[in-house]
Amino acid sequence: MSSTDSAADDARWMARALELARRGLYTTHPNPRVGCVLVRAGAVVGEGWHERAGEPHAEVHALQAAGEQARGATAYVSLEPCSHQGRTGPCARALAEAGVARVVAAMRDPNPMVAGRGLTMLEQAGVEVECDLMAQEAAAINPGFVKRMAHGLPFVRLKLAMSLDGRTAMASGESQWITGPAARGVVQCLRSRSSAIVSGVDAVSLDGSRLTVRHQALIDAGLSPEAAREATRTQPLRVVIDSALRLSPRAPILAGPGRTLVATLVDGPERQAPLIAAGAEPVVLPARDGRVELAALMRHLGEHEACNEVLLESGPRLAGAMFEAGLVDELKLFMAPTLLGHEARGLLNLPGLERMAQQRGMIIDDIRAVGEDWCITARPRPATSAPE
Amino acid sequence: MSSTDSAADDARWMARALELARRGLYTTHPNPRVGCVLVRAGAVVGEGWHERAGEPHAEVHALQAAGEQARGATAYVSLEPCSHQGRTGPCARALAEAGVARVVAAMRDPNPMVAGRGLTMLEQAGVEVECDLMAQEAAAINPGFVKRMAHGLPFVRLKLAMSLDGRTAMASGESQWITGPAARGVVQCLRSRSSAIVSGVDAVSLDGSRLTVRHQALIDAGLSPEAAREATRTQPLRVVIDSALRLSPRAPILAGPGRTLVATLVDGPERQAPLIAAGAEPVVLPARDGRVELAALMRHLGEHEACNEVLLESGPRLAGAMFEAGLVDELKLFMAPTLLGHEARGLLNLPGLERMAQQRGMIIDDIRAVGEDWCITARPRPATSAPE
Repeated sequence: MSSTDSAADDARWMARALELARRGLYTTHPNPRVGCVLVRAGAVVGEGWHERAGEPHAEVHALQAAGEQARGATAYVSLEPCSHQGRTGPCARALAEAGVARVVAAMRDPNPMVAGRGLTMLEQAGVEVECDLMAQEAAAINPGFVKRMAHGLPFVRLKLAMSLDGRTAMASGESQWITGPAARGVVQCLRSRSSAIVSGVDAVSLDGSRLTVRHQALIDAGLSPEAAREATRTQPLRVVIDSALRLSPRAPILAGPGRTLVATLVDGPERQAPLIAAGAEPVVLPARDGRVELAALMRHLGEHEACNEVLLESGPRLAGAMFEAGLVDELKLFMAPTLLGHEARGLLNLPGLERMAQQRGMIIDDIRAVGEDWCITARPRPATSAPE
Repeated sequence: MSSTDSAADDARWMARALELARRGLYTTHPNPRVGCVLVRAGAVVGEGWHERAGEPHAEVHALQAAGEQARGATAYVSLEPCSHQGRTGPCARALAEAGVARVVAAMRDPNPMVAGRGLTMLEQAGVEVECDLMAQEAAAINPGFVKRMAHGLPFVRLKLAMSLDGRTAMASGESQWITGPAARGVVQCLRSRSSAIVSGVDAVSLDGSRLTVRHQALIDAGLSPEAAREATRTQPLRVVIDSALRLSPRAPILAGPGRTLVATLVDGPERQAPLIAAGAEPVVLPARDGRVELAALMRHLGEHEACNEVLLESGPRLAGAMFEAGLVDELKLFMAPTLLGHEARGLLNLPGLERMAQQRGMIIDDIRAVGEDWCITARPRPATSAPE
């Protein structure tokens, strides 16, 4: 460690790098959000963040800003610098060539093409290297990228709007609006940070939802007009699960900008032609119990569409099936101060759950007020080892 | 206002009086919780609180502690001093006779036997009088007494333990235990502060619940052994709603200490004899749709049993019926981090609620962690005037 650095300073500059990384929250898909700070003699000489795939990595922006002052500096990066010639060249080499003396990375790059090679490349070039500073905070910025690199699957966030008594819609399906405008603004932000939004054909047909991100909604939710404009330059991929191919070619979801996949079991050009003509992209997937196999769909989204975070906005059947398949990583429950009664629709269909011993344990990570509603963030409790 | 008093000092001493009043939380039934502080020349010369019906009022304790130093003092009382000769004599006269110069009351006594007469008695004796300082805080200490004096009805708190998806039990009725020990400790405290605990015959028969307050449970919940002993000197009245008189004379609820009312439609000594022999007290009430009229029961509890706060611990049918009858003042929802699925029992049966426009709007007053669970305090949103 250089004499001018201390553990407290390291934490301070890394916190800044994480803050910069978060600026890419809505735009870096399919890449991770990364921030970089170059510090020399206790002062920032350059900083940057990755803004958009195809554009320079965080380190390149920071090096450009620092110029000659990068020589002898410490680079704080929220993710290990890359080692491979991607669209922007290996950042590890660029840092070494600029004369950076020390690199502190929050975490290793989980990308198997990197996975420590960036740090090794730096060490071999004579750069002092440290890793795993605020690693948990860094990983939380990229839950989707981390999961996809490790498992080939996206990080799935299940969003549900419910009443105090856990109901999401009337028996008729009527549900507009349970939650208020502030909660709907947060949902727009969740959509915008996602690579894809997944729903079922019934929900999409019933609501006529477009599942798009609206520029004005992001501004209402607190983004600057510039950030909202950047966030809506591309729309998240929309995915309709439609095993029997029942989606109408006139469904509003097909009218919006951006792509719409239709995950189906129905093969054959005649059946698919009207939807294709309407702009949809059918994807034929394996069946399980007569429906699209959900794990296969998630694998498709991870491997073929490079989806990091997926937002699931669906009715109780699909939500329950995704949950029971172990494909849901996080629940975002927006709870409104209202009661809808026992005849209204429940949150999740979990068939066969008959005894308390079968209950699905969760961990609540956060509860906070959103306007007049409350947002509960929870995740499945990891399975404990079975008793003897 | 005396020269030694200021608005800030008044608030400070009244806050102390409210703090003292809260010491009677578990013991003053059917009286209100009241605290009193006597201050002279900026120093406390005596304080007290009402501990138990039949024992001295807060003012008497404070005057005894102050002795001769009460002369010229200011008395801060969380409730208007009484004007009537009850079990302990009019406190307004005692304060005047002790030479107290000024009385600051947080709120008028809603008891129609007092209702300003205490303050008038003081003024007529030449004492300076002020009222309505921290009145809302003071009323919140005695929600039941205030409601009973105004309407003849108790303040009803509906307690429900539910999963994240709003389910209170499996379809079979199995429900032990959704919430953890900390939440169950809070429920014991809610029972203990209540004048009565109301349940339905099915819930009582299914669970075999005793609906008693356990000394050790209060200690586990944070009360001192002494306070827990005082709190359990008498048990809250237990009330089983049992329209058709189906309660077994061997039900555990009849075995505990304290009284058990059985609210029923069934008159006649032969039918009632086995329950009376088992210690129950049948109360025959008017019918509504073939069941005990809930409003009549609440009136009975308010007028004949002097119940201030009532805790409703019941299944979804009775909970929903009480709610729809406008008899529930507060919901205490204990939410556990678990999912029970759509086949499990809901929170409240609200028959006929079919459109979003009929939803029952609530106000959430508080959400807080209780062990691994969360406690949500909510109340019905007051009806707004109908649109033109």
